[in-house]
Amino acid sequence: MKQAPLSSSAEDESTALRKNAANENLDFGILANRIGFHLRLAQAASFQAFRDEAREIDLSPGRFATLMLIGRNPGISQTTLAAANGRDKSTLTPILEDLEKRGFVKREKMKSDRRSYQLTLTENGRKKLAELTACAKRHDENLDRIVGPKDRAKFLKILQKIAAEVGHKE
Amino acid sequence: MKQAPLSSSAEDESTALRKNAANENLDFGILANRIGFHLRLAQAASFQAFRDEAREIDLSPGRFATLMLIGRNPGISQTTLAAANGRDKSTLTPILEDLEKRGFVKREKMKSDRRSYQLTLTENGRKKLAELTACAKRHDENLDRIVGPKDRAKFLKILQKIAAEVGHKE
Repeated sequence: MKQAPLSSSAEDESTALRKNAANENLDFGILANRIGFHLRLAQAASFQAFRDEAREIDLSPGRFATLMLIGRNPGISQTTLAAANGRDKSTLTPILEDLEKRGFVKREKMKSDRRSYQLTLTENGRKKLAELTACAKRHDENLDRIVGPKDRAKFLKILQKIAAEVGHKE
Repeated sequence: MKQAPLSSSAEDESTALRKNAANENLDFGILANRIGFHLRLAQAASFQAFRDEAREIDLSPGRFATLMLIGRNPGISQTTLAAANGRDKSTLTPILEDLEKRGFVKREKMKSDRRSYQLTLTENGRKKLAELTACAKRHDENLDRIVGPKDRAKFLKILQKIAAEVGHKE
């Protein structure tokens, strides 16, 4: 099958490995060619690049997504937020407690279900979200440049397919 | 440009979002179409699926990769291992301490540089690595099925490109 060229075809497949391994001649065993391993390395690099971009703000990409989802969906429940953000409730709770302590998020007991919280942004949370959105846009432009316009739609689709299907075997 | 069909073309682009958001009609704002966000969701789902696959073994994919890299490269330094595994030294240290405490990894001071450790697997570490390798293979087969044979090489290449380039702006 004919493959569409990647935007930077001069890069060979082992470039990432070599750079990451500080040019040492390592044996990666079965990891070398594995989707799961490279998905983690790409995510770790992207996470770190976002943190560098948002250094003065000191909030991670996960917290940015959390603020964004609450900001766009005021009153969202913790359960819905956790599912939308790829986390379980137990990992989300300390993040929300931190964001509440820093004055960005309000948690209120739901009238319909006193065991659940509904979430909204404070005025400071909205300001912080606007600052982070600017950082995230720079970060995403950088990712888009790396992925390239030809491959972007398909790459995004495959990531979404993994998120939707990997836990649910046929 | 003609796009090669994805293996499951009936899936539309919003499927992952809808499933993850427990079918609620959420507004994802700029996240909806962002590589960085979906990279994290895919990684989180893959991480969880690996953990489920390796439940009895109770070791994460990151620890599996750590054991694999040490097993294939006996005497590897912490610095080299951190770079190969997409981590900085400060996040690797507690992982190595845990693996040492559980009897899977030996850390010894290097003769050439007494501030550095060289790492090897113990006999138990080698056994554990073999068990985890079987889990990882099942997990990776599942990921490969989701990505599809037509798109696999290109998808992997883009992940490697992100890991190599995202922190290094042009």
